[in-house]
Amino acid sequence: MPYDRLDKDIKMMKDAGINVVRIAESTWSTEEPQDNVFDFSHIDRVLDAMHKAGIKVIIGTPTYAVPAWLVKKYPEILATTQMGKNQYGTRQNMDITNKDYLFHAERIIRKIMEHVKDHPAIIGYQVDNETKHYGTAGANVQAQFVQYLKNKFKTTEAINKAFGLDYWSNRINSWEEFPSMVGTINAGLKSEFSKFQRGLVTDFLSWQAAIVREYKKPEQFVTQNFDFDWRGYSYGIQGDVDHFAASKAMDIAGVDIYHPTQDHLTGTEISFGGDMARSMKNGQNYLVIETEAQGFPQWVPYAGQLRLQAFSHIASGANMLEYWHWHSIHNSAETYWKGLLSHDFQPNPTYNEAMTIGRDFKKIGSKIASLKKTNEVAVLFSNEAQTAFNAFSFGWGAKEQYNDVLRPMYDALYKMNVGVDFIDPSSVNIEKYKLIIVPALYAAPDALLQKLNVYAKNGGHIIYTFKSGFSDENVTVRNTVQPGIINEAAGVSYSQFVIPENVSLKDDPFQLGKDKNEIKYWMELLTPTTAKVLAKYDHPQWNNYAAVTQNNYGKGTVTYIGFMPGDNLMEKILEGSLKEAGLWNEDQKLHFPLITKSGINNQGKTIRYFFNYSAQAKTFIYTQGKNGTNLLSSEKVIKNSEVNLAPWGMLVIEEN
Amino acid sequence: MPYDRLDKDIKMMKDAGINVVRIAESTWSTEEPQDNVFDFSHIDRVLDAMHKAGIKVIIGTPTYAVPAWLVKKYPEILATTQMGKNQYGTRQNMDITNKDYLFHAERIIRKIMEHVKDHPAIIGYQVDNETKHYGTAGANVQAQFVQYLKNKFKTTEAINKAFGLDYWSNRINSWEEFPSMVGTINAGLKSEFSKFQRGLVTDFLSWQAAIVREYKKPEQFVTQNFDFDWRGYSYGIQGDVDHFAASKAMDIAGVDIYHPTQDHLTGTEISFGGDMARSMKNGQNYLVIETEAQGFPQWVPYAGQLRLQAFSHIASGANMLEYWHWHSIHNSAETYWKGLLSHDFQPNPTYNEAMTIGRDFKKIGSKIASLKKTNEVAVLFSNEAQTAFNAFSFGWGAKEQYNDVLRPMYDALYKMNVGVDFIDPSSVNIEKYKLIIVPALYAAPDALLQKLNVYAKNGGHIIYTFKSGFSDENVTVRNTVQPGIINEAAGVSYSQFVIPENVSLKDDPFQLGKDKNEIKYWMELLTPTTAKVLAKYDHPQWNNYAAVTQNNYGKGTVTYIGFMPGDNLMEKILEGSLKEAGLWNEDQKLHFPLITKSGINNQGKTIRYFFNYSAQAKTFIYTQGKNGTNLLSSEKVIKNSEVNLAPWGMLVIEEN
Amino acid sequence: MPYDRLDKDIKMMKDAGINVVRIAESTWSTEEPQDNVFDFSHIDRVLDAMHKAGIKVIIGTPTYAVPAWLVKKYPEILATTQMGKNQYGTRQNMDITNKDYLFHAERIIRKIMEHVKDHPAIIGYQVDNETKHYGTAGANVQAQFVQYLKNKFKTTEAINKAFGLDYWSNRINSWEEFPSMVGTINAGLKSEFSKFQRGLVTDFLSWQAAIVREYKKPEQFVTQNFDFDWRGYSYGIQGDVDHFAASKAMDIAGVDIYHPTQDHLTGTEISFGGDMARSMKNGQNYLVIETEAQGFPQWVPYAGQLRLQAFSHIASGANMLEYWHWHSIHNSAETYWKGLLSHDFQPNPTYNEAMTIGRDFKKIGSKIASLKKTNEVAVLFSNEAQTAFNAFSFGWGAKEQYNDVLRPMYDALYKMNVGVDFIDPSSVNIEKYKLIIVPALYAAPDALLQKLNVYAKNGGHIIYTFKSGFSDENVTVRNTVQPGIINEAAGVSYSQFVIPENVSLKDDPFQLGKDKNEIKYWMELLTPTTAKVLAKYDHPQWNNYAAVTQNNYGKGTVTYIGFMPGDNLMEKILEGSLKEAGLWNEDQKLHFPLITKSGINNQGKTIRYFFNYSAQAKTFIYTQGKNGTNLLSSEKVIKNSEVNLAPWGMLVIEEN
Repeated sequence: MPYDRLDKDIKMMKDAGINVVRIAESTWSTEEPQDNVFDFSHIDRVLDAMHKAGIKVIIGTPTYAVPAWLVKKYPEILATTQMGKNQYGTRQNMDITNKDYLFHAERIIRKIMEHVKDHPAIIGYQVDNETKHYGTAGANVQAQFVQYLKNKFKTTEAINKAFGLDYWSNRINSWEEFPSMVGTINAGLKSEFSKFQRGLVTDFLSWQAAIVREYKKPEQFVTQNFDFDWRGYSYGIQGDVDHFAASKAMDIAGVDIYHPTQDHLTGTEISFGGDMARSMKNGQNYLVIETEAQGFPQWVPYAGQLRLQAFSHIASGANMLEYWHWHSIHNSAETYWKGLLSHDFQPNPTYNEAMTIGRDFKKIGSKIASLKKTNEVAVLFSNEAQTAFNAFSFGWGAKEQYNDVLRPMYDALYKMNVGVDFIDPSSVNIEKYKLIIVPALYAAPDALLQKLNVYAKNGGHIIYTFKSGFSDENVTVRNTVQPGIINEAAGVSYSQFVIPENVSLKDDPFQLGKDKNEIKYWMELLTPTTAKVLAKYDHPQWNNYAAVTQNNYGKGTVTYIGFMPGDNLMEKILEGSLKEAGLWNEDQKLHFPLITKSGINNQGKTIRYFFNYSAQAKTFIYTQGKNGTNLLSSEKVIKNSEVNLAPWGMLVIEEN
Repeated sequence: MPYDRLDKDIKMMKDAGINVVRIAESTWSTEEPQDNVFDFSHIDRVLDAMHKAGIKVIIGTPTYAVPAWLVKKYPEILATTQMGKNQYGTRQNMDITNKDYLFHAERIIRKIMEHVKDHPAIIGYQVDNETKHYGTAGANVQAQFVQYLKNKFKTTEAINKAFGLDYWSNRINSWEEFPSMVGTINAGLKSEFSKFQRGLVTDFLSWQAAIVREYKKPEQFVTQNFDFDWRGYSYGIQGDVDHFAASKAMDIAGVDIYHPTQDHLTGTEISFGGDMARSMKNGQNYLVIETEAQGFPQWVPYAGQLRLQAFSHIASGANMLEYWHWHSIHNSAETYWKGLLSHDFQPNPTYNEAMTIGRDFKKIGSKIASLKKTNEVAVLFSNEAQTAFNAFSFGWGAKEQYNDVLRPMYDALYKMNVGVDFIDPSSVNIEKYKLIIVPALYAAPDALLQKLNVYAKNGGHIIYTFKSGFSDENVTVRNTVQPGIINEAAGVSYSQFVIPENVSLKDDPFQLGKDKNEIKYWMELLTPTTAKVLAKYDHPQWNNYAAVTQNNYGKGTVTYIGFMPGDNLMEKILEGSLKEAGLWNEDQKLHFPLITKSGINNQGKTIRYFFNYSAQAKTFIYTQGKNGTNLLSSEKVIKNSEVNLAPWGMLVIEEN
Repeated sequence: MPYDRLDKDIKMMKDAGINVVRIAESTWSTEEPQDNVFDFSHIDRVLDAMHKAGIKVIIGTPTYAVPAWLVKKYPEILATTQMGKNQYGTRQNMDITNKDYLFHAERIIRKIMEHVKDHPAIIGYQVDNETKHYGTAGANVQAQFVQYLKNKFKTTEAINKAFGLDYWSNRINSWEEFPSMVGTINAGLKSEFSKFQRGLVTDFLSWQAAIVREYKKPEQFVTQNFDFDWRGYSYGIQGDVDHFAASKAMDIAGVDIYHPTQDHLTGTEISFGGDMARSMKNGQNYLVIETEAQGFPQWVPYAGQLRLQAFSHIASGANMLEYWHWHSIHNSAETYWKGLLSHDFQPNPTYNEAMTIGRDFKKIGSKIASLKKTNEVAVLFSNEAQTAFNAFSFGWGAKEQYNDVLRPMYDALYKMNVGVDFIDPSSVNIEKYKLIIVPALYAAPDALLQKLNVYAKNGGHIIYTFKSGFSDENVTVRNTVQPGIINEAAGVSYSQFVIPENVSLKDDPFQLGKDKNEIKYWMELLTPTTAKVLAKYDHPQWNNYAAVTQNNYGKGTVTYIGFMPGDNLMEKILEGSLKEAGLWNEDQKLHFPLITKSGINNQGKTIRYFFNYSAQAKTFIYTQGKNGTNLLSSEKVIKNSEVNLAPWGMLVIEEN
């Protein structure tokens, strides 16, 4: 802060209806300016002021950015990665398993907790921030990895066999000679190392949470700010953290969600991040710990967009919405990641719109909070499949990743207003879903695939894409008929695959128009055994092979997509399976940019949201629910009446 | 040299009218083949031969390329940069502050000077060559930087505050723990380090110049060969040297200027480099120490271009023109950077054209040398603004730099035949200019901005672009109304900015045609307070914001451009301010590719140049000056008569 | 292998007509699991099984992939290159001159040889695999290089002179101070180092071959699997090995050839690789030790392509064809480089087509094996020219390499059905060729150029491109008239060259259509002395210069091409010289995609192949040879009758 303006800030926060802030995260050097010298005065000052103002506080442990003195004293704290030894300067550069780091991290956490634990402003704690393994792969980590392998595989012979280490003479004959993972070219071993690294994150967060739990009060929560894969904004599954495992140590899931705005705002990332956060803790509501206010220059929201975004988070089940950050920072690296306030601390159009959100949350918050959602469709993701898939992509030089398969499938469901949960290989009770979407389940143990077979046999519907079942949990390709384990259920087999070039689908099977039958990235040459062929390739050589098949298996159906469809085509293929599964209802009468979300509130009432993700005013007939009340205007909304949405506008209805 | 041909070379030089050569630069290993063993025989031989032929010599100190024996003995001489430790092989790889380097550099300089100081052929000395800091950032430099910070800021607390080091826990609590700058993510600290590094260059050159001055005769000069930012040719401000500071130690400014030719020859770099060199020493004439003869294969000049280039240098105030280099080199890295002679040492079209230049210089040299120029427009550049701006560009992933703002502004002035000087934050007497152009003055102390406010109030005209005044000298964004300090003078404010997309100017305000209103890179959402709006954005969301404003402030005007205009639009905006400032005269009747330059010669006569930078013959009416004489043809030129210029042709008139 | 299926594999191999396999290559860690502990059981098992099945075996030495235990014990075995120290994991990462590596390599080779030498299944040995120098440049190699220079140049003074080390103060004054080659910027020294590195490969392979020879039986051969430059497939000359020198130690040449298929199959790489392999040992037949079966996903062959490829190899003189590999690998890095079998080990379309090849080879093998070919055209390549050329390419930033000149020339000859041999600077008896094609002979000793002059004078025909003769063997540009040494024979000279831009050939000299006169990369401004001008540039400035010339010199002609022509233009220019040399015959009535190859079989009969490298059926009149028999159908083929080829079809005729 360039000058003391805490009172002014709090006044402006109150004006905007802000009732919770997060502090202390990443400020280790302020709290412990020298080794074993502590200063919590700035925390005290803010805590007291917030409490006085009735604003609640989340305290973050400061461990994701290490002080200069710590690194000077213990240079080994900086992680060694595939790129070499990290430099001091940026955050998240440490080896999260380094014992000196852990010693000092524990001490500062305990000191903070001892200091603040009785403060009445605090509603919960965030352990670390956006924690990942940061590619840590130095000698310290290598030694732990070898120990992990010893425990898991017992003998080097078992490892040689599991990962095919005979290849290129990579065979290991004693634990002592185990080479660094930095140079490995073995996709299986590399994926095993990634899994191990994700385990380090789970361990680290659990360890921090356990420390905090020694001090926290029962009514206070522990959370983490989980983030997603990053492509200039949150995009798809985070491969460096096992979200389902790591969130077990938390009381409530927290996420940060960043996304494009202006002409590129679609709400997809809000929905994706929300569905994932909700799924982490089995449908429990979650916290949006960070999202953009102004953000990057290209993200300054159009009029209406900040509101649209805010209610979209709530509609997905969020129970809190925190902007990162309050005001724009005047120095350092993130000068151009702007907060609610610009550098001048004055009201601006974005802040002004936030004030309206605050007013509306105050007005209808009790009706829209703690939304309970029940979905009949699940997307099955897998970190193991992800890192194994990414080790190969679609061949040498290809850049596409697992998320380039998963996200377009999710996006198609989002655009068709199909509500989904996420499940992962650890999920139980998958029978509650009518349809499971399985993108590129590349590396998977037999048991998982067998579980899916049983699911289908018992009446479930599954959509698989190409590469599912291809390799086992060690990224060893199955030597049986492909798709491995699931070929009987899918009623299809293949032994060859090519890169698509000048190929389309024969006879426009989904009536999209000839030019919309886009085939991307990969193309398995499918031969149906028992399956019905939904589409064939249109190509001089491969035109006898199937492209999409559907098989009745027991009481269910299994759809198999042998290639990566373009966006329109993906929707049409999924639409077929949704209808097959009896999941084509009133919500599907609306289509992006008209988005609808719903759930049951604390009073047992159904809440229905309607969002217009476009710059044009939109009209539709309200058929999705019963008569109800427009919560913001308090006007009645009658079923089958015409409803109007302003550009980037929204509507929330409480059913009678 | 593959064989001894000194006499032949000198004969061919004389034929071409060459009367000065530069030698000895970068030949340390020849002059000191072993540690403390010296051999100046090749210098003696050339000096004697040149003297005999009446050719003057500039002696360069050889310090910018270090001998193998020196590096073998003192490996630490090779600089450590952000990329790691340098390898031996290329030039300019040393730490210019290394004490062993400096010891041996001083010794070789003194040995050379002692040896040559009385030779009558020598007219001056060049210290080092194209000196920069080369990113030196090893332990040696780091220690000096910490000392520099100690002297400047006194306490680490002051540094923490100035650069916002609390962020990401980068706080420094004792000088001992100050981390290497190699990994810093703090833009302010990084910019401060750049400033410090530029200071190392100034110190190094001053130190060398002082050594040379102990030996040189009063009539001999000391110069440096300053260069520019490099994009395959000289492009804009050199960010690694403070030209104004470093040239103080020189008697006369020297520069190298490289530029495209053939269809891409515009003369812009010649004019830019000349204006900068002239401005370094307050309007004094300068030396072009290097420019291309044939150069790269893509630079082999068309017929007429070498002449056009040569007279263009003189027209900007150059008093010497040296080609790098005489003949093409047969080995090593620069085989394809060809000299006046090809590798065969025979006359060729480029050399032949040089002969005509030599003849003409001989004929009219006394009338065109030492041209004095008085300009009413200045461009204010700032190395501090440059390095700070470049730390952020226009956001993550953006590649545009400070020179991408400054050069297009300069280019527009050049094309409109507006003569300019350069000024920098250290410049005094800025009141002598009627108009000051200020591109992206991103990091600037209050005092500089206040000086500009006073300048405008007193009747000066200023054109600012976006981002000016945004941050202070520590790259801390001002927390007052933006544009900081200058908002009152500009009569405008903003608190939000975006990246332009699908946006234009409303109602074609400069009558350029709708499609020419190009808006690039950045876009501030301006709200006028007292300013007149010259242009508004044409965009569904931002159309109420101003894009260009002009404010009457005291006796002057301040124009503010909130975005980066395309080239045509830039000209039109500048044209408005030039007219406002009363600077739209006869020269502006000509436009690129017709370029005119003028000045006063030693005899007090006005010399006017007209250049045709195109492959088409051009005709114009001579209205720019009084009746005069075409110096090359000795024909009279009458005011208001028609003048013809051949393709790539030129004309020089001495007014009566 | 995921499970034991050796018998099944052998059964399937036999079904496919496979009668030779290669084993043991790159399996060091299996054969020597611990230091000095050996296990050859898997070799024994395969040898016995193959022998029983009547399948012959090539044993590869396992030295191109080092075991983990070896690197753990001797970390210096991992090479240091310009990129730093290699990591363990990938193959081909070692310093092939490291004494510990060599000690252990020798031991494992001897142990294997002692163990297998009497096994009757073995027909030959392959030493190492795809051996190259891998850029090894650490201290060990540097010391050897300095010794090599000492032997070659005697004094540092001679080196300074040869490579122009005065430049940028790179002069060496004692052997002790010789700097590492890693950082050198001297193109000559760098090229000398490349030559030295190629010498290391020759030495290494000769050393291995000599060890194997101590054990092998007289009827067994020693070979190597030489590979080519790699651009995702085999593309042009391998710059890291001197193929002609290294193959001297072999009994028979072996190569791997990988190439695009599907719509991109042209047969060019098969022809190129075959011509090179055949030329290595003076026209002797060769082994294709590796080529793709399914290969990459984008290489899965269309129906007919695998056959077309197989017979194309034989038509170029191959006597063996081995697919890499038998079955697809289930783990590690090359999972997606598929073999004849997919991961499921089941028959598939590619395997099925291989079965037809096996049948046909069995049927007509004795008639088509050991084809003898006599060509009248040779392409002169030079590794020295290649590495020197690549040091500069076409200027800073240019990416084109030597192979971008050589391959298009080869490709034009291939498309015109002109059979060629390769020769290199060591070749003798070049007089047997009527026409020699010389692409960019950039660095060449005087003697080589003089030999070419004599060749022309005595009646030979030569086609040179630009840059030939430009520099000597030390990459020192000749200071005489260019093109150096050959200018008299070519009847042309130049002293300037440019990068082509907006330039074409005047008056469409080869009647290709104005838009086909493409001029790429480089453009010498040629002035004929005695040569006839075949084409001039069409450009406002350079239109008086010649672009292609032809000179009568003694009894021969010399054609000089001053620029890089587009593909169509290249063909036309070569066509002219072919006709001039009397080499335009019946084969040239066919043009790609119709390819013809021929030779004399063991029975002295002429064998003629006709290949259709297109997806369309093709018809042509058989005029190329005498009446004969379609070997596969046993039908007669009458001269001047119409012949039909299926898409991707082929025909082999034995002349009566």
